[in-house]
Amino acid sequence: MNKQILLKSRPEGKPTAANFEFVAAPAVSVKEGELLVKAKYVSVDPYMRGRMSDAKSYAPPFEVGKVIEGGVVALVTESRHPNFAVGDAVLALIQWQEIQAVAGEKVTKLDKNLAPLSYYLGILGMPGLTAYFGLLDIGKPVAGETVVVSGAAGAVGIVAGQIARIRGCRVVGIAGSDEKNSYLKNKLKFDEVINYHTAENIEEAISKACPDGVDIYFDNVGGNISDAVIANINKGARIIICGQISLYNNTKAPVGPRLQLVLLKKSALMQGFIVSNYASRFPEGVRQLALWLGEEKLSYQETIIKGFDRLPEAFIGLFEGRNTGKSLVEIE
Amino acid sequence: MNKQILLKSRPEGKPTAANFEFVAAPAVSVKEGELLVKAKYVSVDPYMRGRMSDAKSYAPPFEVGKVIEGGVVALVTESRHPNFAVGDAVLALIQWQEIQAVAGEKVTKLDKNLAPLSYYLGILGMPGLTAYFGLLDIGKPVAGETVVVSGAAGAVGIVAGQIARIRGCRVVGIAGSDEKNSYLKNKLKFDEVINYHTAENIEEAISKACPDGVDIYFDNVGGNISDAVIANINKGARIIICGQISLYNNTKAPVGPRLQLVLLKKSALMQGFIVSNYASRFPEGVRQLALWLGEEKLSYQETIIKGFDRLPEAFIGLFEGRNTGKSLVEIE
Repeated sequence: MNKQILLKSRPEGKPTAANFEFVAAPAVSVKEGELLVKAKYVSVDPYMRGRMSDAKSYAPPFEVGKVIEGGVVALVTESRHPNFAVGDAVLALIQWQEIQAVAGEKVTKLDKNLAPLSYYLGILGMPGLTAYFGLLDIGKPVAGETVVVSGAAGAVGIVAGQIARIRGCRVVGIAGSDEKNSYLKNKLKFDEVINYHTAENIEEAISKACPDGVDIYFDNVGGNISDAVIANINKGARIIICGQISLYNNTKAPVGPRLQLVLLKKSALMQGFIVSNYASRFPEGVRQLALWLGEEKLSYQETIIKGFDRLPEAFIGLFEGRNTGKSLVEIE
Repeated sequence: MNKQILLKSRPEGKPTAANFEFVAAPAVSVKEGELLVKAKYVSVDPYMRGRMSDAKSYAPPFEVGKVIEGGVVALVTESRHPNFAVGDAVLALIQWQEIQAVAGEKVTKLDKNLAPLSYYLGILGMPGLTAYFGLLDIGKPVAGETVVVSGAAGAVGIVAGQIARIRGCRVVGIAGSDEKNSYLKNKLKFDEVINYHTAENIEEAISKACPDGVDIYFDNVGGNISDAVIANINKGARIIICGQISLYNNTKAPVGPRLQLVLLKKSALMQGFIVSNYASRFPEGVRQLALWLGEEKLSYQETIIKGFDRLPEAFIGLFEGRNTGKSLVEIE
């Protein structure tokens, strides 16, 4: 049986296994110009929670009763497109389905020698590019500045923090467990780390970890953690809104301190973005990230769960802080 | 008697006459390098409310029991500085005092022929430059875009809206009376106007006035009006935080909808600033504003109250929406 995963119902609050349904895919046929591909690595990403709601956003909502789609690294098992051969590895935004047909135009052939294939869903893919363009293009880090990263042990956070270090910044990471923070501090060489679950007063913890204030805040989480960081910003600070995972499962519109007065007093910038804004510069980003990986200036970590059947579990785990680094599912 | 005005007490909420005290100034002597100046026009500006509180901000707080200071156009009545002569007009950040001594280095000599002297406190001074750099440098308006200005009939708003029109934008002004809105629409040629006191639903009124959405929001007021504008922003919108007058008299930290999710979904920018960030480019700004005035591309209006004794009244009036255009006090 060739399985696929449907959105059975829209989550109310945190997604649960009941929001997903496994069914047998219809028979697959490969037309001229298409490839038959077998999923090898399937990405689970926080932004997908937004597509499970029916609110308008940058990506259209998933439809209830339809197959979920996301980033997948797949292997070509049959090719009716001149540019691809059996055995090629490709990256595509396709369905959560074990085997499927896809137009050759809609996939990117991957270089198997440059890096492990899973990296194209992480440090050399959407999350890595998100960190690269968000930090460098919006944050414009200057050596000696203090950069705070929330969701610091996530797929984007680990890359953003390391790039800030490469640029000579003091980097402070905020994450949700001592294990993650030990990884950030010992392996990735973050200057300071804060555990938001155990810190008595996050605002004070940030103030202590950032004696010269916060120049750049790379925000993956939003909510109270962001309030605490923003209370510590310097004049001319840049706040990069990359994600707001702490709010994605809210059932009501979130309320908090009005930030405009702080932005005004500090001449500070707050900028939202999605990585596709930088699509024309992806080759530059991939090249630089691969170079830093090769030079061992960037370290990388994945949380790989094995088995197509565990995709919902891997996705739900994103909202429980279960992953360190990029979370994905490998299909045997 | 040479009068001066002290900050008698810090306002709690809206300032009142009781927060000010008129006293006789000490005897004034003019040292080498100084000028004796007589105040001609004294500026009242919303930002001064911030200095009346003891919270840290971009300008240090006024001290209780000390003379208030602000922007003043004054005439030189005695000069002990080689660059100034009796009768010269100067712009200075000095005390609320009828006659005082000031160092020649701390004042700017004004060109009496370029424009009426009062304009240097408005369209050719701090408020005009604030509109100029905020709109052009942060907003980066493109012809055809929709620009919404709140506090549109204020000293900064009338200039920001007109510059947006010069740049070929559709301009929608939000102000607090039909009289102001009639001025904005008929005299300044704003495309649409909204009276926030009488609109039944501001968010809908903005949506109706901006059928293509909001590309730039020049914000002078904050609070609920801003919430309504931000609910209508387009992808790539720029939100210029110039002032938050609706919040300046709050006695508690203001709370409202969290905006990061909107900024994220819309890849939007929000930037606070103060005009002194652009000090090195003031000559460019004054030159361009004077040129547009001369070409009659910019129209200008002042609310002038006569008499030094009415300074507190003029200042308090800013928070009651009493002025159209720049508010200032003329001293006979």
